[in-house]
Amino acid sequence: MTGEVTLDPEEWDEASMAFHQAVDRCILEMRSVRNRPVWQKFPENIKNLLQTDVPQEPRSLSELCTFFCESLLPYSNGNTHPRFFGWVHGSGNIAGVAGEMLAAFMNANLGGRDHAAVYIERQVLNWCKQIFSFPVVSSGLVTTGTSMSTLIALTVARNVFAGGDVQKIGLANLPARLVGYTSSEAHCSVAKAFDQLGLGQDALRRIPADNSFRLDTNALLKNIQDDRAAGYQPICVTASAGTVNTGAIDDLETIAQICREQNLWMHVDGAFGGLAILSDTHKDSLKGIEQADSIAFDFHKWLHVPYDAGCVLIKNEAAHRKAYSSRMEYLSGSENGLAGGDPWFCEYGPELSRGFRALKVWFTLQTYGLNQFAKLIEQNCRQAKYLSSLVTANSELEMLAEVSLNIACFRYIGSELAPSVMNKLNAAIVTELQTEGVAAPSTTTIRGCTAIRVAITNHRTVMEDMDTIVAEVCRLGRKQLCQ
Amino acid sequence: MTGEVTLDPEEWDEASMAFHQAVDRCILEMRSVRNRPVWQKFPENIKNLLQTDVPQEPRSLSELCTFFCESLLPYSNGNTHPRFFGWVHGSGNIAGVAGEMLAAFMNANLGGRDHAAVYIERQVLNWCKQIFSFPVVSSGLVTTGTSMSTLIALTVARNVFAGGDVQKIGLANLPARLVGYTSSEAHCSVAKAFDQLGLGQDALRRIPADNSFRLDTNALLKNIQDDRAAGYQPICVTASAGTVNTGAIDDLETIAQICREQNLWMHVDGAFGGLAILSDTHKDSLKGIEQADSIAFDFHKWLHVPYDAGCVLIKNEAAHRKAYSSRMEYLSGSENGLAGGDPWFCEYGPELSRGFRALKVWFTLQTYGLNQFAKLIEQNCRQAKYLSSLVTANSELEMLAEVSLNIACFRYIGSELAPSVMNKLNAAIVTELQTEGVAAPSTTTIRGCTAIRVAITNHRTVMEDMDTIVAEVCRLGRKQLCQ
Repeated sequence: MTGEVTLDPEEWDEASMAFHQAVDRCILEMRSVRNRPVWQKFPENIKNLLQTDVPQEPRSLSELCTFFCESLLPYSNGNTHPRFFGWVHGSGNIAGVAGEMLAAFMNANLGGRDHAAVYIERQVLNWCKQIFSFPVVSSGLVTTGTSMSTLIALTVARNVFAGGDVQKIGLANLPARLVGYTSSEAHCSVAKAFDQLGLGQDALRRIPADNSFRLDTNALLKNIQDDRAAGYQPICVTASAGTVNTGAIDDLETIAQICREQNLWMHVDGAFGGLAILSDTHKDSLKGIEQADSIAFDFHKWLHVPYDAGCVLIKNEAAHRKAYSSRMEYLSGSENGLAGGDPWFCEYGPELSRGFRALKVWFTLQTYGLNQFAKLIEQNCRQAKYLSSLVTANSELEMLAEVSLNIACFRYIGSELAPSVMNKLNAAIVTELQTEGVAAPSTTTIRGCTAIRVAITNHRTVMEDMDTIVAEVCRLGRKQLCQ
Repeated sequence: MTGEVTLDPEEWDEASMAFHQAVDRCILEMRSVRNRPVWQKFPENIKNLLQTDVPQEPRSLSELCTFFCESLLPYSNGNTHPRFFGWVHGSGNIAGVAGEMLAAFMNANLGGRDHAAVYIERQVLNWCKQIFSFPVVSSGLVTTGTSMSTLIALTVARNVFAGGDVQKIGLANLPARLVGYTSSEAHCSVAKAFDQLGLGQDALRRIPADNSFRLDTNALLKNIQDDRAAGYQPICVTASAGTVNTGAIDDLETIAQICREQNLWMHVDGAFGGLAILSDTHKDSLKGIEQADSIAFDFHKWLHVPYDAGCVLIKNEAAHRKAYSSRMEYLSGSENGLAGGDPWFCEYGPELSRGFRALKVWFTLQTYGLNQFAKLIEQNCRQAKYLSSLVTANSELEMLAEVSLNIACFRYIGSELAPSVMNKLNAAIVTELQTEGVAAPSTTTIRGCTAIRVAITNHRTVMEDMDTIVAEVCRLGRKQLCQ
């Protein structure tokens, strides 16, 4: 009809051409990433270019793609580079990109209903149950990441152990004060979840870690008993399978036993470390994870699925569904037609509209197969061990924690430096490594000492990169001392 | 080094070819979507094919792409089709797909740090502030959708009005019981947020809607006063800018005044309707939205950004940041280098790892410009009005609610049918429309009556599609009566 408008292009071939050119440029970038600086500061003149009023008139898609490839892509946070070792980032993979692109074309809403995408997400979840030896009747959800997964799992734990219908009446009307436990090395997302849930961060008891940075299970048991004696109601323990500081894995078997005996929900934050279960060398250290009530982990870390994608698995499907199921009239299901497909995913998490992030996971797992990931995880752990051996053999450097998985924390000590100087010096070395674009480790604090933290969740890293980082840290340490 | 593995392909050209073929197929599908059934049942034999064990060995990316295009893409939930009118789904757009693909190649983590992607998200948020006349110092976040946006906004509201440090001590230790308000027509995500936050669903007072399905502001004021008299502490009002059932927009100016006088947080759920502010015809009905303390809305609905992408805007930046800022040592910022870029987005929401969903929004807004969206929104509203006129003129049909925006709720009445029969009949008509692939409206209940609900957030719909759906509903109504 005359005058009707649409977002579909008049010239499809132009749009198609923009896509093909962008694909070629991005693949070229991916192939040659090692030759680029790990990180480079985003130039002020491009920042200024971005600061426009909200666009009113159209622009050419092809020009926008070119602008992205030339002016934005080179200034990424660097995690696709083989010498990116900061925080815990995955490196991405081309099959995952294909999955993400196809999902965007399909534009499915995974909130619910009966369509192909739903069956892919279900299958991805079934594979995850298989990986962690969870029963097939368990429920789960593909999420944006472990923070969201942990929030969902602890919501279910809260509701199950509330001692009243907390979903209806709220926490303030419950008979007892709820408390939970985790180690002092646990990730901040656990405390954020307690806060979000209205339990308050004080209700999360931070149990000291032992010398290996693992939760002290004797202290845990004593805390639980003390809390009960003081009238609190313990509800859950969150174990870490791979702490962010050092990669330590809590004693999951003992924690599982305590949870069983004390009738507590056992949640495992396995953001990256959980997937070490794929490695023959490391799977024993994860024994007990199959006894958890819930597991949270990321696809975008050690499986290198493009950001963002994580997962939560929960054994008690009914409790999981009860926590989030409240569809309105307009969301009524039906036996047949598009409104079928029960249960809907929106009944298992806080989101009603949900993108098809399961597809990039499905593509990644199918294209490479788990065996390849097992090899990569072992390879990263060997690299961390090798780095540790280089550090130990170098008199200018010092390890700050034992390598238990894929994270090496060390520092430059030079000779006879005061502790306060050393902390500033090592922070400066890390900033300089990043600024020069040589490598991107991050920093953390281990027992008061600023550490250069090399976390290797990177399928492009090779052993030789460890030699490079050691040499560069020493060079920059000496340089800083001369200034 | 010998034996080292990676996910990068040995044959890049093969991977590249797989991409190019997939792009061509998907664009062809997008171009010809009108010729396809809106929805078709996902075949059992393909469902069965998906049910494999977790893959251990590699597969060809090109084969997987082909499988997706042939066996999954045709069985989508149909929202890219011009006659998809179910729930409130956007239709997607090719510029948004390009943005999503480029974001996947870049693989940025938008949790924080100093890199180009961060500046794109900031710019998208600044544009949104401009659209809603929010001060430039407001904060915001690109989210997965309005459910998450509302959860974030209400978290901040809870914390600001708790009357104690609820983040630390929890709800159970506060001096008073917190309560909030919304209309009986409000979206279930508001109640879900109250539940998630530990306030409990009872603490959300459901104020009756008036005859136009808008929150009754007199009843609101009385409820607030009654609650105060009973010792409760009112904290917030959630207004709807476009209810899901009928598209009604609450009286935002009056609600803003009540919130100001009563010292309450005003949150607006503008999931789809908020963006009617772009339309000259409808912007007056949104007057007062600029006075809200927070707004939640979706990019994946009326801006047709591929799923998922939503937004929250919050005027009190400090309160917003306080609600979510708790970085650990390993996340310490620094003045320079990659760890710069303060503030980090992870300080404004529950997620630490965050994908680059801002890019597909940026691409969509830049490629088309707001003027085009204004035209499309007006066009969809005109289509709903036109449908309403067709229904009114047809003796077999009956409107169940006035069209205030883009949603028409009506039903087939034939002649002299009993109400109970009519509800079943109309539900059956909708299922049949979907099953035949002719059109995909959904159902809802309006004052006890099952309605055929046609929600038009679709840039491919033309006026003629309204004639089609009326004719088809009548045909199927008659057919059902003959059975």
